[in-house]
Amino acid sequence: MDKYVYTLRLKVRDYECDLQGIVNNANYQHYTEHTRHEFLLAHGISFADLHARGIDCVVARIAMQFKVPLRSGDEFDSCLWLKKDGVKYVFMQDIFRASDHKLCLRAQVDTVCLINGRLSDCDELNTAFAPFFR
Amino acid sequence: MDKYVYTLRLKVRDYECDLQGIVNNANYQHYTEHTRHEFLLAHGISFADLHARGIDCVVARIAMQFKVPLRSGDEFDSCLWLKKDGVKYVFMQDIFRASDHKLCLRAQVDTVCLINGRLSDCDELNTAFAPFFR
Amino acid sequence: MDKYVYTLRLKVRDYECDLQGIVNNANYQHYTEHTRHEFLLAHGISFADLHARGIDCVVARIAMQFKVPLRSGDEFDSCLWLKKDGVKYVFMQDIFRASDHKLCLRAQVDTVCLINGRLSDCDELNTAFAPFFR
Amino acid sequence: MDKYVYTLRLKVRDYECDLQGIVNNANYQHYTEHTRHEFLLAHGISFADLHARGIDCVVARIAMQFKVPLRSGDEFDSCLWLKKDGVKYVFMQDIFRASDHKLCLRAQVDTVCLINGRLSDCDELNTAFAPFFR
Repeated sequence: MDKYVYTLRLKVRDYECDLQGIVNNANYQHYTEHTRHEFLLAHGISFADLHARGIDCVVARIAMQFKVPLRSGDEFDSCLWLKKDGVKYVFMQDIFRASDHKLCLRAQVDTVCLINGRLSDCDELNTAFAPFFR
Repeated sequence: MDKYVYTLRLKVRDYECDLQGIVNNANYQHYTEHTRHEFLLAHGISFADLHARGIDCVVARIAMQFKVPLRSGDEFDSCLWLKKDGVKYVFMQDIFRASDHKLCLRAQVDTVCLINGRLSDCDELNTAFAPFFR
Repeated sequence: MDKYVYTLRLKVRDYECDLQGIVNNANYQHYTEHTRHEFLLAHGISFADLHARGIDCVVARIAMQFKVPLRSGDEFDSCLWLKKDGVKYVFMQDIFRASDHKLCLRAQVDTVCLINGRLSDCDELNTAFAPFFR
Repeated sequence: MDKYVYTLRLKVRDYECDLQGIVNNANYQHYTEHTRHEFLLAHGISFADLHARGIDCVVARIAMQFKVPLRSGDEFDSCLWLKKDGVKYVFMQDIFRASDHKLCLRAQVDTVCLINGRLSDCDELNTAFAPFFR
């Protein structure tokens, strides 16, 4: 668990479960997005504020492996570490069920910055993330 | 059915159903919002474009009665009529299951306009809606 | 604030905000549902488990007043108290922005129990809720 | 476009857009799920009915490339073709903006069947899909 630089404890909300009684897959994307944005906030950067200043972080690619489904009442730890790859910020995000530490989701999320609509390297994010790049 | 001025045929999407196997209540709010916005578009008005010009239509109150739950595969008609009440645009919105015309939802949605953040009467909407007020 | 019997501290997630930059109205329904279900869990009752045993709590009516919009980064307290009215469990649910205690949402949610599909008075819920009815 | 065996025309709903004014990424997962389920239905197979009979189709992996963001008012074609790879049904799913046929999303969705909770090859799906495998 040493590689993670941020962990957010969350709990399944019943409306996130679908007719199979398990968390609908799309909600894992919500979980990983919320975790990234909370990681940003923890380091003084607001996704909404960036947008207001013409800096849009967008997802270019996502790869997700669904391992064990989360269910009503489950708590889980949403963990991330990150690396830089050219202009991309690559987030490695894993979700573990709290009760038994089983891996539920393994995800890689490649994000890029658009500054005033143009693909750009973002000094502000580079500086904020520098201590965390692996 | 004569009173309705707009009807949108929609179909339940499985991800809208929750662990009870029925459409989660919050999705009816999505259905009614989407119906209002499509009604606007049908009359040349875009909710997103209004926002970009500093005109925000916001919901002040909603009252909903849930009658018959929609399920996976159901098609339904989302119908509306409207009236003006002071500065409020009051939308009366009903949802009927297509297979048997059973009433699933009865809703009243009171909306108001904020122009540059201030509660205002909106000439543009007044003109567009004038033919429809009951 | 004395009347509330349960309070849940939550935080806006950016995906809950829409193109107006404020929390989309339907998410308040999600917040109030999640608060009721956490209130149930705090008293040993699981919504999912009830469903598995043929007991379905369903919403019959909702009335919501939207007062102040929540935005990206806002924390809020989702509070409830409840009363019994015939077979209905009536939840009075208010949401306050944490930073300044402003009232954001005032809601009344009328719920009923279906036991094996039939409207029923539910001994289990009556007993669990008895200490809380106002 | 010859390779696709199913196409569903859909339209962005405003509540699917986030504070950046574009469709939130998680909704593309909803779009692709709904397209698969409508493809199933078009061939007489209901996802909800499968679940009720103990057959659960679940997503094992998703890879998505986000190319061009969809916005308020956009119509789009959600297209798929599929192949069998061992016990996996692999759906290749692309989304094109209707106005100019620009590719918005390229996705590969690997699904498997659980019959009574055990990973299984599903005769029913094999038969239904046989005409479509590439």
